[in-house]
Amino acid sequence: MLNIVTAEHISAIKDLLGPELVNDQAINEDYSHDEMTIYGTKMPDLVVTPRCTEDVAKLLKYANDNRLAIIPRGAGTGLCGGCVAINGGILIDMTRMDKILEIDKKTMTATFEPGVILMNAIEKVSEEGFLYAPDPGEKSATIGGNVMTNAGGMRAIKYGVTRDHIKGLEIVLADGSILTIGGKIAKNSSGYDLKDLIIGSEGTLAVVTKIITKIIPKPKLMTSLLIPFNTLKEALEAVPYITNLEYVATTIEFMEKEVIEDARLYLGKDFPNKDYNAYLIVSYSGNNKAELSRMIESCAELALEKRAIDVFISDTEERQASIWDARGAFLEAIKNSTTEMDECDVVVDIDKVSDFNDFAKNVADRENIRMRSFGHAGDGNLHIYILKDDMPDDLWRNKAKAFMDALYEEASILKGQVSGEHGIGHAKKGYLRDSLDPKVIDLMKKIKIAFDPNNILNPSKVIDID
Amino acid sequence: MLNIVTAEHISAIKDLLGPELVNDQAINEDYSHDEMTIYGTKMPDLVVTPRCTEDVAKLLKYANDNRLAIIPRGAGTGLCGGCVAINGGILIDMTRMDKILEIDKKTMTATFEPGVILMNAIEKVSEEGFLYAPDPGEKSATIGGNVMTNAGGMRAIKYGVTRDHIKGLEIVLADGSILTIGGKIAKNSSGYDLKDLIIGSEGTLAVVTKIITKIIPKPKLMTSLLIPFNTLKEALEAVPYITNLEYVATTIEFMEKEVIEDARLYLGKDFPNKDYNAYLIVSYSGNNKAELSRMIESCAELALEKRAIDVFISDTEERQASIWDARGAFLEAIKNSTTEMDECDVVVDIDKVSDFNDFAKNVADRENIRMRSFGHAGDGNLHIYILKDDMPDDLWRNKAKAFMDALYEEASILKGQVSGEHGIGHAKKGYLRDSLDPKVIDLMKKIKIAFDPNNILNPSKVIDID
Repeated sequence: MLNIVTAEHISAIKDLLGPELVNDQAINEDYSHDEMTIYGTKMPDLVVTPRCTEDVAKLLKYANDNRLAIIPRGAGTGLCGGCVAINGGILIDMTRMDKILEIDKKTMTATFEPGVILMNAIEKVSEEGFLYAPDPGEKSATIGGNVMTNAGGMRAIKYGVTRDHIKGLEIVLADGSILTIGGKIAKNSSGYDLKDLIIGSEGTLAVVTKIITKIIPKPKLMTSLLIPFNTLKEALEAVPYITNLEYVATTIEFMEKEVIEDARLYLGKDFPNKDYNAYLIVSYSGNNKAELSRMIESCAELALEKRAIDVFISDTEERQASIWDARGAFLEAIKNSTTEMDECDVVVDIDKVSDFNDFAKNVADRENIRMRSFGHAGDGNLHIYILKDDMPDDLWRNKAKAFMDALYEEASILKGQVSGEHGIGHAKKGYLRDSLDPKVIDLMKKIKIAFDPNNILNPSKVIDID
Repeated sequence: MLNIVTAEHISAIKDLLGPELVNDQAINEDYSHDEMTIYGTKMPDLVVTPRCTEDVAKLLKYANDNRLAIIPRGAGTGLCGGCVAINGGILIDMTRMDKILEIDKKTMTATFEPGVILMNAIEKVSEEGFLYAPDPGEKSATIGGNVMTNAGGMRAIKYGVTRDHIKGLEIVLADGSILTIGGKIAKNSSGYDLKDLIIGSEGTLAVVTKIITKIIPKPKLMTSLLIPFNTLKEALEAVPYITNLEYVATTIEFMEKEVIEDARLYLGKDFPNKDYNAYLIVSYSGNNKAELSRMIESCAELALEKRAIDVFISDTEERQASIWDARGAFLEAIKNSTTEMDECDVVVDIDKVSDFNDFAKNVADRENIRMRSFGHAGDGNLHIYILKDDMPDDLWRNKAKAFMDALYEEASILKGQVSGEHGIGHAKKGYLRDSLDPKVIDLMKKIKIAFDPNNILNPSKVIDID
């Protein structure tokens, strides 16, 4: 059992770390939630902002000795309540540990503190002529948050997700021990893969204090194709053919007219085309024009064969920006169009995206809820949003629950998974439990207890151990 | 404590599975070792060759209830004793489960039983126009063995290792439960990453019974460059520059004159060039000639700048075969040149390969042992062999130990890891333990116990739990 944070604890932590790192008075309301207020808000008892690994180690040791909950938090851009102190406790705000420690060209690695903002990481790596390839939509997230949720993003089809780019981690265990796992090395078959266990563990197994990532040579050119279809079904049915082409696309995204209109209203900027019901955005990257032309031609030709109405080529930075700025704003635009929303981030086989989206629409129609969807067609990862608008609270909660219950059940039937890239937090814990074999849940509990026997690290997230 | 396999056990297992799957009489001597007899030979008490997952499940449940050791084995091509019944027990030979279950173009996945031979997997996927990208040197290994050791291979620089291509697994736990982990999906942030924990666990956590892999569009063309240097140091120093080029090489391998001569003697075939002391083989793949030419030109130009003596381009299948056949035969050629050998498969940062190889040579000189080395220059993964020749047994064991102790100590200093791709088995368990923080070993033990509380699965491999 965890203890409640008392005045004595706060005073001891101030003595331990220096009072300037500890805030128990005027805690900003932002700390009470992430991007999804529907999952509840709760103020932490205390916010600690460590400057270095040793600060984290000291705090964790104290918290472990005194059975106090530790809730690690990056930029708070999560979508399932993972960084919220739902039962109180000490929130550890990692954003002050935001140094880019090294860009090492020889080993093609970058070393970051966890609080580095993704946008800054990408930019700094790019300045050195390299690419940090993962491309989660939320560029103001921290790279530590990306590691903790195994953030996916728009380039996963070509480059993989965050997990595929992490080579080494420095972590602090619940008891305050500091460990290094992996490194700058490129291969490793030396015992169990603890690194990948930590990645995606949402702060429940350890606190990450240093991150070594791959960086790769940066492709010089990118071109995006905006491909309209009469129906989303037709658009999605073309996707497995596009992925079979000899050149691997960097991105294959899908969207419908309505969400483009939301983005137009939100940004006040026009999208290159808005005449059709559904679109794919397919992008390719490479190092020279002739090569890129071949990629584009083969994709355009195939798309037209597979019922695309047209293919709009965006080969200038400006034209691409008009597509990608809109794509990047979808989530905020949808959020901005309503009073509250709920979201589902399931992943299914890529040839089942269309069926799944149809299923969701039917449920939304039946429940009479406004729905938006878009997502990573090339990865089978859908983002489906339902919107409260002016619905009364109780009705909304009931409808949202009925909608989500139906979707996660269908995802299970299709052998999909609860979360493609946003994680579980506390909001999706029940769905995770229902979707997995009890033996799998049991193994996860045992792993949690192996790392954190007193359950101080982000308790009640991902799985419940009791 | 595990029990010894008795006549009653054998009789019960025959009743359970049918006597045709159980062999306790004329057990082939091959089952007593893998490729490295230096680590000892030991006959199992019993060999079971299951036909299906249910056979595996029944056997494991029985073994768990009766506390009998289970040693999973693929083709027996391992290099650290991982599939040897070092303390007796039931060897479970997975090679009869060798069906290629599905090549699914839409989701770009292939589904294999674990006993499928890698060569057959590659060929079948290729016939469908796709590439199973991992490229471990030992093509007669099983794909299950590849998963269990997280086999690396020669294309890791571009495509990653086996781990990076495994999307889903069916596993049998020690208690006989059958679980599916992952699937055909492309992304997953749904709880702890059990899949990656199983990959590379060398049969100590579960027995894998089905494997879902990525397959990717197959590049149409490949060209290899054979690049001679005056010294290995100069060759290896050029590598980080090559990896920084805008096109990512598929392979960067290094070798010295002596090992090429070993391969020539073994194969009875000439290598394209043997005038120089050290060579890199750099290969590129792509879909058209112009693109490939650009890759080759930029690499050749850079290599010559970085002290290469010449660049030989092998752009026909025949010329490439003369290089790759030799490269593929190095291990067997070295083995064939001596009476017994020991090997080290460390991985270090790619800019430290040269220093590490020098260090090893100095130790070999000091100990007066014949040494051969070659390896994956682009991954920092060296394969260093010492050869017994006509040395007396005792002297050889002592020298081999002194040599390996020195190498693993140096690897630790350089922040390398004990094994890049061959695994730990029982042979390298001590070095693994010495190279890792005791807290890391402790976590690994707890994970082992979480999966296999009675320690029946490949006991005394990777880590000791008592």
